Amino acid sequence: MKALASVILSLGALALALPAAAQFQKPEDATNYRQSAFFVMGQHFSRIGAMANGKIPFDAAAAKENADIVAVMAKLPFAGFVPGTEKGHDTKTRPEMWTEQAKFKDLAEKMQAETVKLAAAAKTGALDKIKSAFGNTAQSCKACHDNYRAK
Amino acid sequence: MKALASVILSLGALALALPAAAQFQKPEDATNYRQSAFFVMGQHFSRIGAMANGKIPFDAAAAKENADIVAVMAKLPFAGFVPGTEKGHDTKTRPEMWTEQAKFKDLAEKMQAETVKLAAAAKTGALDKIKSAFGNTAQSCKACHDNYRAK
Repeated sequence: MKALASVILSLGALALALPAAAQFQKPEDATNYRQSAFFVMGQHFSRIGAMANGKIPFDAAAAKENADIVAVMAKLPFAGFVPGTEKGHDTKTRPEMWTEQAKFKDLAEKMQAETVKLAAAAKTGALDKIKSAFGNTAQSCKACHDNYRAK
Repeated sequence: MKALASVILSLGALALALPAAAQFQKPEDATNYRQSAFFVMGQHFSRIGAMANGKIPFDAAAAKENADIVAVMAKLPFAGFVPGTEKGHDTKTRPEMWTEQAKFKDLAEKMQAETVKLAAAAKTGALDKIKSAFGNTAQSCKACHDNYRAK
């Protein structure tokens, strides 16, 4: 995993949403996809949080590995927000998300940018920098959740 | 995404299973994690398959992007196969998987190696190479499914 961090900056070529054509065979695949990608991202993000909050011992290598995965995963879920998946399949997406696409995209891109910074912070191995970047990333997650995810 | 392929070979540092300590808060998180990672991988893999099988037009850039994601995702799910998750939560894992860990690990590593080859093939942009690598990767998925996934 040692070089993954170095490639994250190059991930910008992966657009917020991949071309929608022929991406998902069924609407529930799209919903499952975005939820799955967010879940995997969240699991790795929470491990960094556990270190940042002192709940588990700080492990610089693990923090870096988790941050690298978070930055990659952060690029994926948005391709799953496609028309036809507004309801059903346990989606927590609020209706406002579908009518405020510019704001949603902006919040998503801000979150993605914060995960890149988090990966860069984790690469330094400095816990104080990781804590700061973790907090900023968490805020960027929350900004979207507060607006567009049902409680 | 342009440089992601180049980093995949360096992913070897990410072991088949990450350290189990404090990885998942609940057993269902582990099951959900492995299923989510496999689902995301499968979605991207199936898009390459659709091109390989002529169901959608060949798009070299999309094939490469999907193959890069597949190779990254292939590293993740195995951390979710942890003790305490043998049953429940809709797992399709057959009991044999838990008692044949060496064989399971071998099949998993073979699959991961095939995804690296698939990403390399996709990088060339040659559809015939992608078709061949796709077939080999699909076989490596099937080998594990045949042994360890319930129908």
